[in-house]
Amino acid sequence: MEKTQSAETPEIGGIRERPKKGDGSICGYESLHRLLGDNLKPEIFQEVSRLLQGLNGGKALESIDLPEPAIAVSLKHDFDLQAFHFSADKELLREPRIVRVGLIQNSISLPTTAPFLDQKRAIYKKLEPMLDAAGASGVNILCLQEAWMMPFAFCTREKRWCEFAEPINGESTQFLQEFAKKYNMVIVNPILERDINHGETIWNTAVVIGHNGNIIGKHRKNHIPRVGDFNESTYYMEGNTGHPVFETAFGKIGVNVCYGRHHPLNWMAFGLNGAEIVFNPSATVGELSEPMWPIEARNAAIANSYFVGSINRVGTETFPYPFTSGDGKPQHSDFGHFYGSSYFSAPDASCTSSLSRHRDGLLISDMDLNLCRQLKDKWGFRMTARYELYNELLGRYLRPDFEPQVISDPLLHKKC
Amino acid sequence: MEKTQSAETPEIGGIRERPKKGDGSICGYESLHRLLGDNLKPEIFQEVSRLLQGLNGGKALESIDLPEPAIAVSLKHDFDLQAFHFSADKELLREPRIVRVGLIQNSISLPTTAPFLDQKRAIYKKLEPMLDAAGASGVNILCLQEAWMMPFAFCTREKRWCEFAEPINGESTQFLQEFAKKYNMVIVNPILERDINHGETIWNTAVVIGHNGNIIGKHRKNHIPRVGDFNESTYYMEGNTGHPVFETAFGKIGVNVCYGRHHPLNWMAFGLNGAEIVFNPSATVGELSEPMWPIEARNAAIANSYFVGSINRVGTETFPYPFTSGDGKPQHSDFGHFYGSSYFSAPDASCTSSLSRHRDGLLISDMDLNLCRQLKDKWGFRMTARYELYNELLGRYLRPDFEPQVISDPLLHKKC
Repeated sequence: MEKTQSAETPEIGGIRERPKKGDGSICGYESLHRLLGDNLKPEIFQEVSRLLQGLNGGKALESIDLPEPAIAVSLKHDFDLQAFHFSADKELLREPRIVRVGLIQNSISLPTTAPFLDQKRAIYKKLEPMLDAAGASGVNILCLQEAWMMPFAFCTREKRWCEFAEPINGESTQFLQEFAKKYNMVIVNPILERDINHGETIWNTAVVIGHNGNIIGKHRKNHIPRVGDFNESTYYMEGNTGHPVFETAFGKIGVNVCYGRHHPLNWMAFGLNGAEIVFNPSATVGELSEPMWPIEARNAAIANSYFVGSINRVGTETFPYPFTSGDGKPQHSDFGHFYGSSYFSAPDASCTSSLSRHRDGLLISDMDLNLCRQLKDKWGFRMTARYELYNELLGRYLRPDFEPQVISDPLLHKKC
Repeated sequence: MEKTQSAETPEIGGIRERPKKGDGSICGYESLHRLLGDNLKPEIFQEVSRLLQGLNGGKALESIDLPEPAIAVSLKHDFDLQAFHFSADKELLREPRIVRVGLIQNSISLPTTAPFLDQKRAIYKKLEPMLDAAGASGVNILCLQEAWMMPFAFCTREKRWCEFAEPINGESTQFLQEFAKKYNMVIVNPILERDINHGETIWNTAVVIGHNGNIIGKHRKNHIPRVGDFNESTYYMEGNTGHPVFETAFGKIGVNVCYGRHHPLNWMAFGLNGAEIVFNPSATVGELSEPMWPIEARNAAIANSYFVGSINRVGTETFPYPFTSGDGKPQHSDFGHFYGSSYFSAPDASCTSSLSRHRDGLLISDMDLNLCRQLKDKWGFRMTARYELYNELLGRYLRPDFEPQVISDPLLHKKC
């Protein structure tokens, strides 16, 4: 099928990382934070930051000086590199527990029409300098984006993309294990998984690699979307691994994959199991979710007194065969723009600014894990949560004969 | 005790509604939205609004033309008056169900040292024109702020403020019943309640008044704060009324009082019981919660597919006897600044701009309640929620011998 290419339409099978700047258009801006910083007077920007980023007195989060090689590699490979520091109170009976955490967001590297092995290897090649930059910067725990080793092809409903699935100790895990060992770095590795021992079933899975390069365990995505172009339930089912928290050398971490961020109970479960940092590796597009992106992770960090690292892929991925969507749009060949914007949220309601909406990026933040318990003590959300009420309600709700607690205006019914 | 008054310190027992504008200071700005609108170029403001308010293509929410008398009264009494319209798709099998909803935020009227009856009556007097403006504007459901009929004196821990408590059919309810009848308007009336029939116990309660002026029922605040200056648990206990949803002539509504907004499970419960609009009448201060304010209610609206109306009182209330706080601050005489900023959130992640941070205000919005089910169908959060997992987890968590699901790095423990 022939298709005329306009400046706005990426080539079929191609990748578009950064929209072109038009005349006076602002579609190429890097992030909300930079857009505001570039266009507001400093004292106004400071007050706006206080409100939007929960920064005390509008004082920017302290940034970290990264080693020269990391900065050089980010310039050479044109990826966004930002680093911040969340502070916590000094305690009298515990030493600070400062951990350096990293998030990587990236676009794919070859067109989706290239041979699959080439596509995967090209992503490895693109990630290498970013992984080196993380290692050189002393990152202790690093998380990649959802299904980072492939295009996010689940819009197509074509089953051939299943070929990308790998066992949890497959090639992509092995690729990252080398970096884990080299840099003494825990790596959260979200892949498309094939479970050989259970009928070759497909799952959306995060493999947690320890700082010695060993596989600590895995978590399978708990909540699977059926919305817009997100036809993921065509490929894999709801995860069967519960809400594990992984005790690593650098802290207790959980992984809430993508659509699970819309479910407050999913966030809660990682908290009840003791998570201090929860990662949300994602793949989500502008039209569908961009206004929700700064809300849900921050709410989870506040409500559960833990840190959250949110990662979204970047760019527009186009596919060879057009597909239709749950929104009744005419057939189209791409998911829309993956808007990046990866960021960290803290339990005290503060957050970092976001990575670029268009470019690959590595976001680093130091966080004193003591802040989690400090916020529990301050706000008392666990103490005041009344879980017994909700356990009872959910028990009733699950029964087919559930009767909602409704108090009707008696005059209303008299009239009917 | 003598105390020197500075320009920044309100008189003891007094009220300060609006900070003075300093030299180049921006402390007197009305709201984040207006601050951005006044300082950004239109095309940038449009993009910022798309991201911050979830507005499609950055197109502002349609505003509503209010009747001239309502506008005149807002100018005469200097309260902020804003009105918007959330739209929904037209359905083929249901008519639109458009409801006009209002929120009132206000400061107290007399110093906290005035006789209690005078203080209460002065608040009635101040609210009258606002209630008339709501009625004249055709508001169907109106919600006032938490404990609107008194100063928020729970910072003091002095028990004499208990005198303000009223039975649910007491003077403040009677005052509002007249307006309900006059304007055919449901009114949510959050008061300090005294339960005469159960040992004269105090509760933090929302009384729901039907459009005929009848009392439909009450809901008692479920989660009680112990944070900073919020010593509310000195006065009343966790509510014993569950999570009722009130079926009114204009829709099904719930009331999540103040601190309950930090508890995602509390929001969820009103949703499971069928709420289409949940009000969050609050009293909260800048230093403690302002960056959380735009997060939690919006998250609840998204996660539970309903509308939320958030109300916060306004101004700084000072008390005759200084008190100390949970934060170890030196003794002081006020709670800090109640920052108003009342606003509506919709299930599609959009929200209105906020009322003033300093002035009394009436915020009105039309909302098509069909949007709730439209978002349920689109995103499928109920369908994908896996409540059985969480019911099981909470059941285990409540047991004294609960064991969190933790997967430890085996190499880590070998080393220890």
